[in-house]
Amino acid sequence: MRAEIIFIGTELLLGQIMNSNAVFLGAELMSLGIDCYFQTVVGDNKDRIKQAFETALTRSDLIITTGGLGPTSDDLTTECLAEFFGEELVLDQAILEHIQNLFVKYNKKMAESNKKQALRPKTADVLFNSAGTAPGIIWQKSFQEKQKIILTFPGVPREVKTMWHEIAKPFLIDLLHKQSPNLERLYFKELRFYGIGESDLAEKVQDLLDKNDPTTAPLAGQDECRLRIATKAINQEIANQKIKEIELIINQRVGQFIYGINDESLESVVINKLKDKKQTISLAESCTGGLISKRLTDIAGSSACIGLNVITYSNESKINLLKVKPETLSSSGAVSEQTVLEMATGIINLAKTDWALAVSGVAGPSGEPIGKVFLALIKSDNSFREVKTLDLGFRSREEIRWKTSQEALAWILKTI
Amino acid sequence: MRAEIIFIGTELLLGQIMNSNAVFLGAELMSLGIDCYFQTVVGDNKDRIKQAFETALTRSDLIITTGGLGPTSDDLTTECLAEFFGEELVLDQAILEHIQNLFVKYNKKMAESNKKQALRPKTADVLFNSAGTAPGIIWQKSFQEKQKIILTFPGVPREVKTMWHEIAKPFLIDLLHKQSPNLERLYFKELRFYGIGESDLAEKVQDLLDKNDPTTAPLAGQDECRLRIATKAINQEIANQKIKEIELIINQRVGQFIYGINDESLESVVINKLKDKKQTISLAESCTGGLISKRLTDIAGSSACIGLNVITYSNESKINLLKVKPETLSSSGAVSEQTVLEMATGIINLAKTDWALAVSGVAGPSGEPIGKVFLALIKSDNSFREVKTLDLGFRSREEIRWKTSQEALAWILKTI
Repeated sequence: MRAEIIFIGTELLLGQIMNSNAVFLGAELMSLGIDCYFQTVVGDNKDRIKQAFETALTRSDLIITTGGLGPTSDDLTTECLAEFFGEELVLDQAILEHIQNLFVKYNKKMAESNKKQALRPKTADVLFNSAGTAPGIIWQKSFQEKQKIILTFPGVPREVKTMWHEIAKPFLIDLLHKQSPNLERLYFKELRFYGIGESDLAEKVQDLLDKNDPTTAPLAGQDECRLRIATKAINQEIANQKIKEIELIINQRVGQFIYGINDESLESVVINKLKDKKQTISLAESCTGGLISKRLTDIAGSSACIGLNVITYSNESKINLLKVKPETLSSSGAVSEQTVLEMATGIINLAKTDWALAVSGVAGPSGEPIGKVFLALIKSDNSFREVKTLDLGFRSREEIRWKTSQEALAWILKTI
Repeated sequence: MRAEIIFIGTELLLGQIMNSNAVFLGAELMSLGIDCYFQTVVGDNKDRIKQAFETALTRSDLIITTGGLGPTSDDLTTECLAEFFGEELVLDQAILEHIQNLFVKYNKKMAESNKKQALRPKTADVLFNSAGTAPGIIWQKSFQEKQKIILTFPGVPREVKTMWHEIAKPFLIDLLHKQSPNLERLYFKELRFYGIGESDLAEKVQDLLDKNDPTTAPLAGQDECRLRIATKAINQEIANQKIKEIELIINQRVGQFIYGINDESLESVVINKLKDKKQTISLAESCTGGLISKRLTDIAGSSACIGLNVITYSNESKINLLKVKPETLSSSGAVSEQTVLEMATGIINLAKTDWALAVSGVAGPSGEPIGKVFLALIKSDNSFREVKTLDLGFRSREEIRWKTSQEALAWILKTI
């Protein structure tokens, strides 16, 4: 089955919003083993929407659309398809009630225009939207004597995801199985790396990148990278075996740089490791301004291992709260080895945690030398007490802060 | 002039990266007053790339491409266009030297494959890339007896932006002026709102949304919204006058919800207001885990008005550091009016700032009642001392934390 996606909405053409549905739907189609060769973005214009459908239907079997299902006169998807296929639209009582109930639930008055969202073609099924008012449609039509399927989704990413998982994905899996009972699907596993660049990593596993099954592909992230191992198989078990073989080879060569798999992040693996070891940590941040704390507390359940984090931007707060010596600040400066060590000591004494991390640096755009950062990591029993220096050159403020948080989390993970 | 954009790269179809070039180029074309009716995403496949060019050339005068200019065998843009137009490719010595110099500068060995990036069609100009190795090409060709322009860019967003501003934009402005000397360009101003929903806002200015010049369009953000006023004019001065009239009307009706314009954010206007008033603030965060602090310190120069921020997740840290009374925690709980007031008092005593904000709530996914958040804002001279309660219902952990940070920043802005 060959698919393509049409994103409908002038706001996408004008660059007013990021098309995150493209990322979600692209990855989902890939994971079902459905090839997708084109994506088209088209504005809220009847002629051009129909033109996009015509082009897509001549070369693909499955068309997925997002957008154009709202209540306003700019929302044209259903109308265009009905005209294209010469279909009559009828009011669906069940959808209308669903929409009316939503308005009652949120204590809002339903506008007359919302009724439009309850229109559906006489002979097509509804793609129910449990997350919002706009339902999609499952069109199954013949075009140029071939059977075509069109699934229409609204534009809101949260609704697209819900409808995909609840209805569209099971529908497509069922269809694929009917077409070929021994259907192979794409399974994959991502290995996440920190401390090795994308090109270095690619060089170390070049032979795997050239292999066809399983395929291995490098993916770049923000100051980290991933390897995605993918294979087609009829079930998870067979896929796992094939993926396992490649994973072993990668582990042998660059295993020391792997910090996690799939959806894991540096912050989630740090929290999980602290939880496993029943240990706690506290942070004293200066230049990162709460970013490391924010990332760690993004993880649900992090409160079990985080005692107290402080952001001591000013010298006074370093002196008064963390007991950094005024002499240290005047002789070595706020961005120095001695200062971060005293900051770490100060916060561990206050928070009584097993570990403490302190960071001080120049994130810019003012100050000198921009990109110079000191990190201290200490353990309460003094069995670990080290300082790390980063020279992050002339990156932007945002990049310096992010890279510092990456280095800090990776260091904590390796040490604890 | 009618434009369209072709994004070339299989990684886009597979959902492996977000297409941020679409946002940048879409907005830039709009600001030049160039209509763009279609965007197409196509993979690294010769036949399909050529097919995309054919379709685009039949309906548009200006084609912009991103991607496919790298050194690998998957990078096919220049090759496809050369074949499409029957053009011979020649090695450009100046580009080759530029690439070689970059490798010397970064102390890396240039691969043989990089030479490919110095190929250009005999009769076309180079779109120089000062930010990377891959130059683009300015193709000016005849197709179906009409003059067409194709500008090719690499895929890296930073390089696209640099090349756009340095070369492509001036080139296009020049071209537009030649086509019509009294050329009108699109000018716009965005007003940023907090505390009013998109549909409520739209209702209040419905007559403006229906107007053609200037146009006013509502844009939704994450827990905030914007109105974009846009007009075509031959210069900024005339545009400003036309925009000003609309802005005055909006100000009269919903001015109390406007917090900033264009690129401003809640955090940037808070920092600027604190700086203007030479005042300082400190924060004690619990459920937001450093997010408010992180957002405020994202702003360069924020250190002037931020003394000390603490993240007191645990009861012990609230008691020991902020002197919250153990009785308060046991009788009212950590998430209560009394606790946030004591937290705010604790941090203002420690940090000696003019203002203090404290927040405690249940971000989930565990704990009860999820979405209940208390905020306290106090002034050191006790002239302001208030508590605000939020009921954020069953949102996700991330959404609750974000919405809380929005409410906190908007409250600070309104109060100080």
